[in-house]
Amino acid sequence: MSDALPEMQYRFLGRTGLKVSVISLGSWLTYGGHVGNETALECIKVAYDAGVNFFDTAEVYSGGQSEIVLGEAIKKFGWKQNDLVISTKIYWGKANSANPDKPLNNNGLSRKHIIEGMNLSLQRLALPYVDVVYAHRPDRDTPMEEIVRGFNYLIDNGKAFYWGTSEWSASEIADAWRIADRLGLIGPVVEQPQYNLLVRERVEKEYRWLYEAHGLGLTVFSPLKGGVLTGKYNDTAAPPAGSRLAESEDGYVKSLRKTVGDDTWQRQLDQVAALKPVAEELGVSTAQLALAWILKNPNISSMITGASRPQQVLDNIRALEVAEKLTDEIIEKIEVAVGNKPAVETRRF
Amino acid sequence: MSDALPEMQYRFLGRTGLKVSVISLGSWLTYGGHVGNETALECIKVAYDAGVNFFDTAEVYSGGQSEIVLGEAIKKFGWKQNDLVISTKIYWGKANSANPDKPLNNNGLSRKHIIEGMNLSLQRLALPYVDVVYAHRPDRDTPMEEIVRGFNYLIDNGKAFYWGTSEWSASEIADAWRIADRLGLIGPVVEQPQYNLLVRERVEKEYRWLYEAHGLGLTVFSPLKGGVLTGKYNDTAAPPAGSRLAESEDGYVKSLRKTVGDDTWQRQLDQVAALKPVAEELGVSTAQLALAWILKNPNISSMITGASRPQQVLDNIRALEVAEKLTDEIIEKIEVAVGNKPAVETRRF
Amino acid sequence: MSDALPEMQYRFLGRTGLKVSVISLGSWLTYGGHVGNETALECIKVAYDAGVNFFDTAEVYSGGQSEIVLGEAIKKFGWKQNDLVISTKIYWGKANSANPDKPLNNNGLSRKHIIEGMNLSLQRLALPYVDVVYAHRPDRDTPMEEIVRGFNYLIDNGKAFYWGTSEWSASEIADAWRIADRLGLIGPVVEQPQYNLLVRERVEKEYRWLYEAHGLGLTVFSPLKGGVLTGKYNDTAAPPAGSRLAESEDGYVKSLRKTVGDDTWQRQLDQVAALKPVAEELGVSTAQLALAWILKNPNISSMITGASRPQQVLDNIRALEVAEKLTDEIIEKIEVAVGNKPAVETRRF
Amino acid sequence: MSDALPEMQYRFLGRTGLKVSVISLGSWLTYGGHVGNETALECIKVAYDAGVNFFDTAEVYSGGQSEIVLGEAIKKFGWKQNDLVISTKIYWGKANSANPDKPLNNNGLSRKHIIEGMNLSLQRLALPYVDVVYAHRPDRDTPMEEIVRGFNYLIDNGKAFYWGTSEWSASEIADAWRIADRLGLIGPVVEQPQYNLLVRERVEKEYRWLYEAHGLGLTVFSPLKGGVLTGKYNDTAAPPAGSRLAESEDGYVKSLRKTVGDDTWQRQLDQVAALKPVAEELGVSTAQLALAWILKNPNISSMITGASRPQQVLDNIRALEVAEKLTDEIIEKIEVAVGNKPAVETRRF
Repeated sequence: MSDALPEMQYRFLGRTGLKVSVISLGSWLTYGGHVGNETALECIKVAYDAGVNFFDTAEVYSGGQSEIVLGEAIKKFGWKQNDLVISTKIYWGKANSANPDKPLNNNGLSRKHIIEGMNLSLQRLALPYVDVVYAHRPDRDTPMEEIVRGFNYLIDNGKAFYWGTSEWSASEIADAWRIADRLGLIGPVVEQPQYNLLVRERVEKEYRWLYEAHGLGLTVFSPLKGGVLTGKYNDTAAPPAGSRLAESEDGYVKSLRKTVGDDTWQRQLDQVAALKPVAEELGVSTAQLALAWILKNPNISSMITGASRPQQVLDNIRALEVAEKLTDEIIEKIEVAVGNKPAVETRRF
Repeated sequence: MSDALPEMQYRFLGRTGLKVSVISLGSWLTYGGHVGNETALECIKVAYDAGVNFFDTAEVYSGGQSEIVLGEAIKKFGWKQNDLVISTKIYWGKANSANPDKPLNNNGLSRKHIIEGMNLSLQRLALPYVDVVYAHRPDRDTPMEEIVRGFNYLIDNGKAFYWGTSEWSASEIADAWRIADRLGLIGPVVEQPQYNLLVRERVEKEYRWLYEAHGLGLTVFSPLKGGVLTGKYNDTAAPPAGSRLAESEDGYVKSLRKTVGDDTWQRQLDQVAALKPVAEELGVSTAQLALAWILKNPNISSMITGASRPQQVLDNIRALEVAEKLTDEIIEKIEVAVGNKPAVETRRF
Repeated sequence: MSDALPEMQYRFLGRTGLKVSVISLGSWLTYGGHVGNETALECIKVAYDAGVNFFDTAEVYSGGQSEIVLGEAIKKFGWKQNDLVISTKIYWGKANSANPDKPLNNNGLSRKHIIEGMNLSLQRLALPYVDVVYAHRPDRDTPMEEIVRGFNYLIDNGKAFYWGTSEWSASEIADAWRIADRLGLIGPVVEQPQYNLLVRERVEKEYRWLYEAHGLGLTVFSPLKGGVLTGKYNDTAAPPAGSRLAESEDGYVKSLRKTVGDDTWQRQLDQVAALKPVAEELGVSTAQLALAWILKNPNISSMITGASRPQQVLDNIRALEVAEKLTDEIIEKIEVAVGNKPAVETRRF
Repeated sequence: MSDALPEMQYRFLGRTGLKVSVISLGSWLTYGGHVGNETALECIKVAYDAGVNFFDTAEVYSGGQSEIVLGEAIKKFGWKQNDLVISTKIYWGKANSANPDKPLNNNGLSRKHIIEGMNLSLQRLALPYVDVVYAHRPDRDTPMEEIVRGFNYLIDNGKAFYWGTSEWSASEIADAWRIADRLGLIGPVVEQPQYNLLVRERVEKEYRWLYEAHGLGLTVFSPLKGGVLTGKYNDTAAPPAGSRLAESEDGYVKSLRKTVGDDTWQRQLDQVAALKPVAEELGVSTAQLALAWILKNPNISSMITGASRPQQVLDNIRALEVAEKLTDEIIEKIEVAVGNKPAVETRRF
């Protein structure tokens, strides 16, 4: 592998005209949280210099602190918004909110919280608009029409250029389009699901007809499944002290921690172990193999990576080189190793 | 249990104004097939006399013979179509067709087959129209707009009053509504899935928001899971010779047969065994308990039952009495016995 | 090449659910015209037996006689319409009409002629409906809304399942869709242009964005450019006496005849001469090479072939075998030989 | 010819209610570029005083400098925007951008660039809005719906009153209308193509049905074909040193330069030579004849002229007088001289 960093690649965000770096930088669990501000700014700078133009955050990350850090970076480094693609997200399920003390209407996808939440996010980011705003989770308590109208309000008022969803079911996405089409409004153009070599069902099966029929783009998170795909949990009975999996109070990580040691956990470790020789054959780490494998999926507009040190940013970007090496033969070996390719009929739509 | 047959009950078919008997008679695997015509006509007559007004068939059942038998019954007994609700279905997946020699355009949900298939069904039924026509399976090779327009053509031309789906995913149903809403056309008002004490996920979880949001009605098939819920397979290692499960060449039954003896099969037998004491406590058969449990679900418009002897028709109808006995306490015992209640957030939509 | 006829292949007609044989049989210039009825029926029978399910005709071909012959074949051989795909066309420019004596309203794409013309075509075909009806040419004297509504009337009244265009410009097709979308009507799903190794601009350049954006399908005519691609005109200064090119009174052929000897004519003969060694390398005729090349284009739903002898039908079908041999390398040699590949930017839409 | 300048004439911009001077002033290749700012301001002033109310620019002209100069003129001379019609354009193909260093999303017709590009243009112009904003080229990478919605956003937010296209194909314009009509949005009301005595096909043939059917207006550029129609290249083998054709680095001029000496170039010089006696008969220059001929076309809303000296502005305006002299007889002589009138059927639409 050459020493020079590979050149960044760009893809359209689904069927929009917006171009995003195929590797993007997320701030979940990190910036504003356990990573110090100086290091966070440094990571963001290194990513930008390497060609990353797409930065993802959310109102809920570190109680709003992630947005603040990202806004500080943009200001500090004098970047122009037309050279960036910034996304944030409104609402994150029942338990979480940027306003934990008074969740009532500081939560959910009511018109009130979509608009108020967006305004508060923009204040924290110190920006007049974002490029993409996501509904961070489905809200089954608010009628879909109210939700679709809410996000269109943001677009009509120049607070965002596009809207998307995160962890919605295919039928909820289809329903949002139904409302949008009926009312002549704009539907969600991108979904942000979890996707990695261990969790594939939704992206490869449930959503499959949405790509062709509606041009849905994907920005995917947890490409390394919370670190499991690095192989670092393969060598110990329990997550090592100090690891995020051992200590984070984040809801997702806590739910992941509960699985440690159960059947699913053990099966995943076995899958990672089986990937190791394939990675070694290519002379790369299991983590790099796992990232590169995601990049080969043409339905992925951008893979959201995390980094708590600048070197991690660069390591992640090297996945672009590894992707070049993934021949059909290697892909087949990977499939044999993980043994979880969803059975999907090959049909036109 | 009294000797008199319980009075038939009627429900609206989803959010339509059409009233259907909560117990309906299907002709799948039976009429036109392994059950002789005389017996088939007798079963249909007994059901009608017991208040069943809803009779279900499909172009694919017994290669069209089921429709012929049902049409003969209507003619023979001099019934008027305004006293009946007749449903049939177009297309049944790749492998099956009423025209097996030249499947090409005698299959799928192209406009051509929707219209030609309906015309051929009506010829076999010797009726000018049916009440409900179903898309028997999703067709991922035909655009949804063509499908929605095809069924609306049937409605506009008086060949059917309503249209529905069978075994479609929630996202496909939502997409059909999207097209219908955009074009000012009529969407599918009813879905016909499998539903019974052993297979619940789709009805209770995947579809759950469609009932409230869109008024989806359900007509459910296989209420006894191909006989498994009668308990008759609990006492032998293999399906008894002569049983449908042992011998039918029907595709669904053949796929069920393959499961005999595997983990799922054994788990289901265990569930049935656990139901037995609950049924005995009520003094009913396990089958009756299973049917009655379905009737308690308010999202079910009609439960489609099969019968190869007139006595079975009457036995099935007695489930109406049993349903009266299903207190919250009994329901809870049933849940404990089967242990498969889908975890569903209780939200508004 | 094996003696057995290759198995017929089927494609969807553009983005519809209708399946058509990739080789179809046209009746232009032949059936009802210079080919005797007995031979015409024989050709049609041979095609059907070889798996051709798609038969194309037009009200203008041989003044309506082509439709009569096709209808006779269907009746004589007892074919069912659900096993066939029949297309016809209404209107063919100013000069031609099935009613040459009183062209006035027996021409054009007025609502009157669309409906009256269709009814007369169906009478000649002795069929209740066709599968596809084409507007045989654009009619710039009739507003597009009247045209779109006219064809939708035919579909709504069960006279046709789909409608298409023939030799319309991309902007006319886009305008038809504009009207259809605005009114919630059905737009044209297929275009029938000329397409062959000598005439490529429209199919490969002008229409190119319509395939992806609107799912336009193509059925193409003159795959051998009126015989020029057989090479039979390469050896003589003028079309041989008795050849169609020398003697036909058909308007298209007459206009082709005028080009004999001019620059374009000579360039085409040169192109055909350059194709000959490529064909010889494969051990096939120039004609077979030319047909096979068309089949490689995925935007072609069906290639309409003509035949005045049953053997020609079979020769044409052998193009399916030849298509298997067209490697990227051979395709490149063909491109070098004809030197007319349109320059097209590769863009997403 | 009288000494007094002819009175300016005004036409509606297509089927809008906006009145524009039939001669407008463009800043392409000039203001902000090779013409000094003082001279540029003088030209603009002279044009305004002569009745020109329509000034055309683009984000790409001289990397944004043209907009800055035009804005300075408006400010310096104290003109009110209600007395002016100002147009600018967003995006100019792949190669050009007002932000050449980071073209990524500073290019194309994504919603992001339409809005951000417009905001930057307005900053350079120091105006709150323009009258007309053009899509400077088609963008086949962005869905038409996104493009149409983007320009409507500008209109809805008061950044522009109308939107148009430049060098789009007829089918692309028709498709934009299709989307606009379906969504109840505003379609493009004007197209800006090249048009002159040597390049006529698109305006007179390809677009012809758009004028009547959709009220398309035209503002045309290069009325003298980069100076070729002045006759100045007829007397020398190569463009004279110092001429724009010899030295400009502008992409369009460079592509024109490549044609110098080839067949097309020679044919054009022949055409210009043939025009000379017709011009002399009228006592005007070939350039004036060429401009006047454009003004006779009723589908032209405004002819965009360039000028690097104030006198050129006045010379151009004199074409209004010459147009008065273009009788049918003279027009016929012009047609004979150029011999390139597109063959167009005379039909209603």
